[in-house]
Amino acid sequence: MKSVIVNDSGARKQLEVGERPKPEAGEEDLLINVHMAAVNRTDIIIKDENTGYSSNPVPGVEVAGTVVEADSAHSFAVGDRVMGLVNGGGYAEYAVMPASRAMKIPEALSFTEGAAIPEVFLTAYQTLFWIGKLQQKETVLIHAGASGVGTAAIQLAKQLSNAKVIATAGTERKLKFCSELGADVTINYKEQPFDQAVSDATDHQGVDLILDFVGASYWDKNLASIKTDGRWVLIGIMGGSELEHVDLMALMTKRIQLTGTLLTPRSDAYKAELSKEFAARVLPYIEQGTIRPVIDSTFPIESVLDAHQHMEANRNIGKIILSMESEANK
Amino acid sequence: MKSVIVNDSGARKQLEVGERPKPEAGEEDLLINVHMAAVNRTDIIIKDENTGYSSNPVPGVEVAGTVVEADSAHSFAVGDRVMGLVNGGGYAEYAVMPASRAMKIPEALSFTEGAAIPEVFLTAYQTLFWIGKLQQKETVLIHAGASGVGTAAIQLAKQLSNAKVIATAGTERKLKFCSELGADVTINYKEQPFDQAVSDATDHQGVDLILDFVGASYWDKNLASIKTDGRWVLIGIMGGSELEHVDLMALMTKRIQLTGTLLTPRSDAYKAELSKEFAARVLPYIEQGTIRPVIDSTFPIESVLDAHQHMEANRNIGKIILSMESEANK
Repeated sequence: MKSVIVNDSGARKQLEVGERPKPEAGEEDLLINVHMAAVNRTDIIIKDENTGYSSNPVPGVEVAGTVVEADSAHSFAVGDRVMGLVNGGGYAEYAVMPASRAMKIPEALSFTEGAAIPEVFLTAYQTLFWIGKLQQKETVLIHAGASGVGTAAIQLAKQLSNAKVIATAGTERKLKFCSELGADVTINYKEQPFDQAVSDATDHQGVDLILDFVGASYWDKNLASIKTDGRWVLIGIMGGSELEHVDLMALMTKRIQLTGTLLTPRSDAYKAELSKEFAARVLPYIEQGTIRPVIDSTFPIESVLDAHQHMEANRNIGKIILSMESEANK
Repeated sequence: MKSVIVNDSGARKQLEVGERPKPEAGEEDLLINVHMAAVNRTDIIIKDENTGYSSNPVPGVEVAGTVVEADSAHSFAVGDRVMGLVNGGGYAEYAVMPASRAMKIPEALSFTEGAAIPEVFLTAYQTLFWIGKLQQKETVLIHAGASGVGTAAIQLAKQLSNAKVIATAGTERKLKFCSELGADVTINYKEQPFDQAVSDATDHQGVDLILDFVGASYWDKNLASIKTDGRWVLIGIMGGSELEHVDLMALMTKRIQLTGTLLTPRSDAYKAELSKEFAARVLPYIEQGTIRPVIDSTFPIESVLDAHQHMEANRNIGKIILSMESEANK
């Protein structure tokens, strides 16, 4: 089958499209004919830093496609259109997915839209509700609001919790898009210190919850932006991970709960439970169109390097999709 | 009435015993004839750093005594023996306590034992169960195991959750005492790096929960000692609060929940709810004698400075009590 492979024969690892044997599905797995895969930062890390998230030599953690081999319990049927997380191997014509975490793609949605859902929406759902415990009408600060997870989180916080959403981004185009998704307040972090804008927007109280994809470079301003007893979920380190000075007293006096999290390395059982709850609670909104996947661009699989560079330059609003569709699939 | 007062007329604040007017209780308060008060680190901080925890000029956040004026709802009667947290003003002959948080002293217990309970047991209960979410048979690392909160936490974790308790302390005498209270593993942090001992004691898995009264000086070893998905409650900074280097990636890859907390500055409603749940769930153990307050020493109120110095030198095992008992009370 056609597949992206990591060629590490040179000085720097390269992604290339080549031929690999079709993967074999276990009894509790689905074998999926992948139509669309989506790009995630973890795919870039695997290439650059040799910190693979799985033993699978093929990158890619989420796909949308059709079932070609069902699981032994027949929880899905051959021909079903499904989307979901895979344990690596998504950038290929065929991929294996545990049936326990597969979700049917709503009828109104294309494969492209389906591939844009799992990773970012499950991450946003996990961080907002399971870890961040967002309550009705609380205030949440969502950094990188125009990113994949950011666009998902803005919609989820607004639609499910009627939260007051404050989003940050670095261009007016991105901020406008955040507003269209439902953000109540948008902040251009390049034009003003975001903590001052948060203070102004919250009557100097700060926010109940921070979704932090940035890390080190935002540390002090996040500390200043969070309310006493606030929750702070650390889910990315786009602004570095190394802090040169931390005063623990600030965490104590504000009684902050700081939780680090990652989705990809979690267990199959965790991903199954998360996918199940998400499908039950959020897919109805997606079917009605009140929550929607946000797609930035679609690249043919042969242009996987261009797709990665597009993400690395932070030019995207929403998801970058890789199309596996050959003539036979169209 | 007799009271400790902070004399700040000199270069350094001094605690002195003097005369003050008896405080006035509001409708929802009890006026208490204080028999015993207990010493807490926050009392020392108020003296040294001018960071008062309340507008009350008299130090002291917990007392045991008899009710001399009941609240208007008569939730307690004149003559009742009560213990609990006060919003400052504990180091005095009379103190005001919101009735919502007062607890009856079990019959078998003296005022001295009653005064040794509220602050440390409520703090340990809050950090273990409300914040730390300790589950049955989990493993908990309790630093400063022979301190007031440490001795309370060892007993609560053991009796209520049948947890595997690992305690650290700096002398063999303290470690022996931790074992007597129920600690399964004790570590002399002066003789070996505690993280290595924790690793050995947990089959290299680490602990589910850390109760951290130490802060900066233990940071790296705590990071090494915690299990993936572990909870870490920061409740003191005996080892400093300033960290020169933190790698946030470690919090993410281990998916750590780090929560800073303090009890004294929390709201009346919080203290009421915590005291109520504690009284219902833990006082039966104390009545039966399976959980006991740990008293290090009792000082007459006139020796308040000696009592503080005893705590500052970390010589105590358990609580340091101040006796307000005049001849009339005996």
